[in-house]
Amino acid sequence: MTGNESGRRHTRDDVALTALRILDDYGLPDLTMRRLAAALDVQPSALYWHFPNKQTLLAELADRIVAQAAVRRVAAPADSAAAVPGDGMSGVRAEAAALRDALLAYRDGAEVVASTLALGLGSTLAHDRLAAAVAAGGFDDATSGRAATALLHFVLGHVSHEQQRMQYDSIGVLSDAGAAPAEDDDPAAEFAFGVGLFVGGLELSRSRR
Amino acid sequence: MTGNESGRRHTRDDVALTALRILDDYGLPDLTMRRLAAALDVQPSALYWHFPNKQTLLAELADRIVAQAAVRRVAAPADSAAAVPGDGMSGVRAEAAALRDALLAYRDGAEVVASTLALGLGSTLAHDRLAAAVAAGGFDDATSGRAATALLHFVLGHVSHEQQRMQYDSIGVLSDAGAAPAEDDDPAAEFAFGVGLFVGGLELSRSRR
Repeated sequence: MTGNESGRRHTRDDVALTALRILDDYGLPDLTMRRLAAALDVQPSALYWHFPNKQTLLAELADRIVAQAAVRRVAAPADSAAAVPGDGMSGVRAEAAALRDALLAYRDGAEVVASTLALGLGSTLAHDRLAAAVAAGGFDDATSGRAATALLHFVLGHVSHEQQRMQYDSIGVLSDAGAAPAEDDDPAAEFAFGVGLFVGGLELSRSRR
Repeated sequence: MTGNESGRRHTRDDVALTALRILDDYGLPDLTMRRLAAALDVQPSALYWHFPNKQTLLAELADRIVAQAAVRRVAAPADSAAAVPGDGMSGVRAEAAALRDALLAYRDGAEVVASTLALGLGSTLAHDRLAAAVAAGGFDDATSGRAATALLHFVLGHVSHEQQRMQYDSIGVLSDAGAAPAEDDDPAAEFAFGVGLFVGGLELSRSRR
């Protein structure tokens, strides 16, 4: 069988892993079905056996990127929980930090996850894990869900900014002048500060009940 | 003088206003220097008299979009402040809401402002107004600056999501199934809830000093 005959010699997993590699090497604008097909040595039409359109492919990549956040949490739950002992909300901080790490692991990761979320595609894993962490702090489901949505928008806004800066820096178009607030010396500390405000807001609402 | 001879028959303001109209009509991906030049009936090269590159043009558009938030605040300061009487942090809520409204006023407004911010171009007006509102609540400059950065990332993350959903909805690719958390029945209420958590976190940190 030649490479042009069928996409079935590649599994869905092969296609997704190759797409993730192209994403990380070239970025989202250059992840086209044509380039993906060429990397797999098949015709673009052969990809549609596994993914009916590009949105479906991106949703699969988003799910894989987000799933790594859960893996990271399983790998180091004790460390994360120990970071703020007796806090009660340390799970929220740890989930948010694991999600940031997972998004940062692939170029344009935040953009892939954000657009999948906006399309209403992909799994609800990121939202569900954040909501569960909030609920574990003693909040009802409605509050936990709304807090998780807000936190997810913060995480995606923060990491999109971080990844855009990295991208602009790598192609040499980052301005030295101007917008001081954008020039975060320590994005991890800025991120933790923002998550801390969210967590503080939740704690305040709990104390006022 | 024919349209092809010079861009100087158009002022910088003409060029920016035409670009904003194209942005709003067609979206950021279709705002090209070529299309802008055609709309102004000049050669693309004539645009560089006013804007040396597309980044500089987008920074000008970002500044104009953000400036509308300040105008909105001047137009209705009493209404905004009255929303949460005796709160002390109502200025932060009002600034964030005015910024959201300003971003929503142009298609892809959040994306234009976010990418300009990441490039380190454009004014620091959005950040500065949020920081001033936080400082008015009794916080030092460092805390106000960090809080403004976090809040700005939340605002941009939230509004990007809202605008992507509108865009996907208009071209008919929005999925009905899947990702429940993305399907906000009331984006304004979700936004206010998120800002409220930030404000609560600030209030909690103040009460613990």
